[in-house]
Amino acid sequence: MNGLPIFNEIHEELDKVERKLKSCVDTKQYLLAEASSHLLKGKGKRLRPAFVLLSGKSCGGCLERLIPLAASLELIHMATLVHDDVVDSSLTRRGIPTVKARWGNRISLHAGDYLFAKSLVLLSNYKDPRVAGTLARVSVEMCRGEIQQITTAFKIDQSPRDYFKRIKRKTALLLSASCELGALVAGARDYITRSMGRYGYYIGMAFQITDDILDIIADEQQLGKPAGSDLEQGIITLPTIFALSRAKNNSDFQQLLVKTTKTRSEIRELIEIIKNTGAIEDSFNIVEKYVRKAKSNLAPIKRNSSRDVLYVVADFIRERSF
Amino acid sequence: MNGLPIFNEIHEELDKVERKLKSCVDTKQYLLAEASSHLLKGKGKRLRPAFVLLSGKSCGGCLERLIPLAASLELIHMATLVHDDVVDSSLTRRGIPTVKARWGNRISLHAGDYLFAKSLVLLSNYKDPRVAGTLARVSVEMCRGEIQQITTAFKIDQSPRDYFKRIKRKTALLLSASCELGALVAGARDYITRSMGRYGYYIGMAFQITDDILDIIADEQQLGKPAGSDLEQGIITLPTIFALSRAKNNSDFQQLLVKTTKTRSEIRELIEIIKNTGAIEDSFNIVEKYVRKAKSNLAPIKRNSSRDVLYVVADFIRERSF
Repeated sequence: MNGLPIFNEIHEELDKVERKLKSCVDTKQYLLAEASSHLLKGKGKRLRPAFVLLSGKSCGGCLERLIPLAASLELIHMATLVHDDVVDSSLTRRGIPTVKARWGNRISLHAGDYLFAKSLVLLSNYKDPRVAGTLARVSVEMCRGEIQQITTAFKIDQSPRDYFKRIKRKTALLLSASCELGALVAGARDYITRSMGRYGYYIGMAFQITDDILDIIADEQQLGKPAGSDLEQGIITLPTIFALSRAKNNSDFQQLLVKTTKTRSEIRELIEIIKNTGAIEDSFNIVEKYVRKAKSNLAPIKRNSSRDVLYVVADFIRERSF
Repeated sequence: MNGLPIFNEIHEELDKVERKLKSCVDTKQYLLAEASSHLLKGKGKRLRPAFVLLSGKSCGGCLERLIPLAASLELIHMATLVHDDVVDSSLTRRGIPTVKARWGNRISLHAGDYLFAKSLVLLSNYKDPRVAGTLARVSVEMCRGEIQQITTAFKIDQSPRDYFKRIKRKTALLLSASCELGALVAGARDYITRSMGRYGYYIGMAFQITDDILDIIADEQQLGKPAGSDLEQGIITLPTIFALSRAKNNSDFQQLLVKTTKTRSEIRELIEIIKNTGAIEDSFNIVEKYVRKAKSNLAPIKRNSSRDVLYVVADFIRERSF
């Protein structure tokens, strides 16, 4: 989403967030800088800062006050990405305990902790205890979500409800906090703050479900990685859950899903089965529902250019799917 | 130190901290409970909670208010231990990428993050922004210390100053924060709070140097692990730095130190060389100096039973060394 016209509204502020992020990565310790730099260079979507800024701005907040919060939210997100690296690198480099691989893991572990701690330093500038309190509780839930994802891998007896609970923790709560705290720091009234929190929550749900759909239907060029990586890792997402309930008697499908090592052609086979059940359309309908709910929570906010962008972003999340 | 008569003063409160810690480990997610339980079962020294309680009590604070802070400090410490596990297990299980080993690492990673996030939830109950702010800054320094330890491993061109900076980050700052924040939450005046912070800092330095000495001179039974584990991992501690400056021309010693893989007999040889230089006595003199500085910082505090315990603890740190 970076560089998209929909973010023009906050282009200047996003640059300030970027500078804040750069200053948070200590350059004196070169290994730390190295471990974090690819995240800064890659730039990423900066979704969380964008939502903090747009939410705060749509509530008439002072933008300078929002910058540290926006940077802090991105640092929390970056910390989780760096920690995912620890796990991923141990998978891809499996069985090769070179000093470099070992150090890489250790550095990633501590670099993740460092980015998270840096976010806390930024947050400690806000006197309102709800800022730190909300993010502390969200962080607890994010860890629970990660562990839930590990313990439910390759388990096909999951309901849509289990899945929704998991992605709420994994994605939606942090986006919800971005919007809620943006409004809070902007000095919005409580009912507005709560409404913005719900907007962020529904956006987060729609965003993650779309991500999970794309992992099945998009091609390698669009994704930047081969399709079906969730299937490969045994992560059971909404399309798979819908497909399972529509193809109850397809035991080949079930047996293939729970295989811990799958060939590329087996993954392609799984993708075909899921597509043929109509599970993709079902999943898009759920996305549609969440996008509608997100938009309806913008109703209490007076129209202004930032609020309009939040409205358009909701539609964009649905559109990027096709 | 757990169960020692010197902690009788706060026996009841430590029990309450223990219950608080147990309630923080969610039992619904069994893998999470499993990953944290050995830390709770092993009990540990609970040094940080003890210093929070003793410091707060010696300043006349309400003990109920201190319990969440004490538990929070222990959770931060536990989180670092769990994250050390991630690294350690990748060393000891090297090259065996069993699913269990992989899951163990992932669970440890997220369990550490979880314990840390839980500590933040407890901290968010304190309205004074200095509580969260201080611990955020300490957490940043702790990460820096960990990375410093990794990047300086097997490097023999380190000064005592480099070493002091490293253990300050690794150990002393968190003990300093325990004492400082205990006093702060107890409502102590600023100069008392600062003095307690310095007491904790010097205690932490003395404690870590003693630990590093014991790793060289104690036997396996006392340590619960073979002596010389720092030497094995290439961690250059104060006795080694002193020995290096006293045995400048001993190139065998230097070459042995930088070997990334050492046999047990090579480690025994290193220990003998270090002992023979008189580096152990030099290191104990530094401990003595820090213990004296710690005690002198108790001077501004009116005598009471808790303050007396803090005084005795300082002596105990030195005594346990022999």
